[in-house]
Amino acid sequence: MKRISRTSPAKIVLLIMDGVGGLPHPKTSKTELESARKPNLNRIARDSLCGLIDPVSPGITPGSAPGHLAIFGYDPLQYHIGRGVLEALGIDLELKPDDIAARGNFCTVDDKGIITHRRAGRISTDKNTVLCRLLSNITIEGAEISMLPVKEHRFVLILRGEALSPELADSDPQQLGLAPKKIEALSPQAQKTAEIANEFVSQASSLLQGKTPANMVLLRGFSRRPDIPSIPEIYKLKPAAIATYPMYRGLARLVGMQVLPGGENIIEQLNSLQRYYADYDFFFVHFKNTDTRGEDGNFQAKVQAIEELDNVLPSLLSLDPDVLIITGDHSTPATLAMHSWHPVPFMLKSKWCRPDNVVEFSERACLAGGMGRFPAMEIMPLAMANALKLDKFGA
Amino acid sequence: MKRISRTSPAKIVLLIMDGVGGLPHPKTSKTELESARKPNLNRIARDSLCGLIDPVSPGITPGSAPGHLAIFGYDPLQYHIGRGVLEALGIDLELKPDDIAARGNFCTVDDKGIITHRRAGRISTDKNTVLCRLLSNITIEGAEISMLPVKEHRFVLILRGEALSPELADSDPQQLGLAPKKIEALSPQAQKTAEIANEFVSQASSLLQGKTPANMVLLRGFSRRPDIPSIPEIYKLKPAAIATYPMYRGLARLVGMQVLPGGENIIEQLNSLQRYYADYDFFFVHFKNTDTRGEDGNFQAKVQAIEELDNVLPSLLSLDPDVLIITGDHSTPATLAMHSWHPVPFMLKSKWCRPDNVVEFSERACLAGGMGRFPAMEIMPLAMANALKLDKFGA
Repeated sequence: MKRISRTSPAKIVLLIMDGVGGLPHPKTSKTELESARKPNLNRIARDSLCGLIDPVSPGITPGSAPGHLAIFGYDPLQYHIGRGVLEALGIDLELKPDDIAARGNFCTVDDKGIITHRRAGRISTDKNTVLCRLLSNITIEGAEISMLPVKEHRFVLILRGEALSPELADSDPQQLGLAPKKIEALSPQAQKTAEIANEFVSQASSLLQGKTPANMVLLRGFSRRPDIPSIPEIYKLKPAAIATYPMYRGLARLVGMQVLPGGENIIEQLNSLQRYYADYDFFFVHFKNTDTRGEDGNFQAKVQAIEELDNVLPSLLSLDPDVLIITGDHSTPATLAMHSWHPVPFMLKSKWCRPDNVVEFSERACLAGGMGRFPAMEIMPLAMANALKLDKFGA
Repeated sequence: MKRISRTSPAKIVLLIMDGVGGLPHPKTSKTELESARKPNLNRIARDSLCGLIDPVSPGITPGSAPGHLAIFGYDPLQYHIGRGVLEALGIDLELKPDDIAARGNFCTVDDKGIITHRRAGRISTDKNTVLCRLLSNITIEGAEISMLPVKEHRFVLILRGEALSPELADSDPQQLGLAPKKIEALSPQAQKTAEIANEFVSQASSLLQGKTPANMVLLRGFSRRPDIPSIPEIYKLKPAAIATYPMYRGLARLVGMQVLPGGENIIEQLNSLQRYYADYDFFFVHFKNTDTRGEDGNFQAKVQAIEELDNVLPSLLSLDPDVLIITGDHSTPATLAMHSWHPVPFMLKSKWCRPDNVVEFSERACLAGGMGRFPAMEIMPLAMANALKLDKFGA
């Protein structure tokens, strides 16, 4: 791709409807997309090349990171983004290449040290901020420690020092009724880091005594920034991201996108798109509500989220991007109330897209699309081609 | 897969209709599946995710081993199972990792040593057993020799010893009018084994003199057990196989399945399934007749085999497995009277399968299925996902 990509003024807009794919409602046999009133999405489908993407591969349920990485053109089996790194990126933390990041929860343990609440009753972000400041006083030989509040009970722990390793198991047992686990080194060179992390947990536990419900910490997803070639480097694009949730902004930054103001909702996101439209040639717009409602298991609310998005599409269409792609990073069927493995509807509209016979944006309709079922990793080359930003390959 | 698989009580039933795919009859332009009366298969298709599988890759006609291995989730280009090993597994032989197995035929040669019948007129299994006992008297320096009767003219030769190699060419020229070939070493380290094998053939020839029609042996498929990770290991399943033919039982055993009593026909197989249903969470049920009739070139008989299977499906459906998969290991069109390269209809029924618009189980109907055309190797991840036996991949 690097060799055949070229710069041009053409604009690509990639709109991710997080978790948009669904499953039929048992009563109506219609999916969320099939149930929604969505004239704009359908009109775009009529002019588009449609299909269904497999973010990772058939049967595999992607987390948010692999789902997005695949759409951005990266092999999610090759580039693994740890939970800690993702969390850190999401709060605008500039990770140095050797920093070790872990995702933390404040939690509640009883007087025997057994976890009774994994999220400490979801303490407020303000309380969290106070506790993080308290624990930042911890000093341990061999590593500089930073503790940064995220939302509610969530925090990021950063270990910075020489010869540290992210090859550590979680302390979080991910269930109640157990004590937090001692952090184990998964390789001999991680031994020192494991000792530092365990010492941190031990000191944190002492400092938090009596601070119930937040009287203990759980750590997971120790990781380091992956060494990943950037989108500007590979595609010669000037990319920007417009997302309301920190994690997606962090992910975008990791692949070299400029993060633009995302505001609070899709209307503000599209305002931001309009405002910065002249300054970039690739825009990743992330719509979160479809996933949130799906995870809630609220079928009707997910239908409404789709309709909410459909309603604001005219403002996006008025920009008339050279290439418009609408898809999702995975399915989140409301009936399952979680991410799933089902392939995700996809459409690409451009002057040069060779439309198929699909006239509806839905799982079943997109099956008959011109792309059929295909790996999400193929989206970026398609986007580039349809923007006429790729040279011919070979003589 | 190993990292994200988890155990659960959910049951997966994989029903292989051997060689089920076909080609249109020249008179009716309908395939065997399209010609059969099969209300149950069609009803399942209506509730299923359908598609067409390529066992190996487009254009490649699979043998039974690669066809099944692919469905079991193994790359058939990576894991090669020799004919000798397959034959040995099929008669419940416990092969040691270093044993060399060859598939043998008793055959007839004339007084010039030219093959006049490759199967010695299909001698009885009883006669075969007597001859195998006779040839087991052969002793050769450097290898322990076992000769085991299979069915009719077929036997297995096992060479056990130190520093033996399976890299040997066949002695069987696979045609009449030629003499059996001298067994050639295909690598320098197989030289000793080649000498042993040729010495065996020479002594066997002497001992069989006058035993016409079985007066000579043909050897092919020298091979050693592949080192293959087992299904319990990869998927944390407790798998069982129910097959009437030895080879399929052997294949199942090789990938770590427990072999259950298969009986004589599909009715007895499904009785066995019912009897052992509580004890395992994955069942491979092998229906042979579709392939046999296809190989016979008997279109109508293959249609009847499909109808025979369809008739007994209610007993399987009454178990209400969490995931039911019906497909074949390859096509065996009656018009070709042999295995073929054509992709094979596939359907997967589960509570979570996202049904498509397919309402008939046939080659052409499945083309419009939600899976489209896909590699058979993707079946196991799909089965696991639909049984909710896979964790999310990545953060």
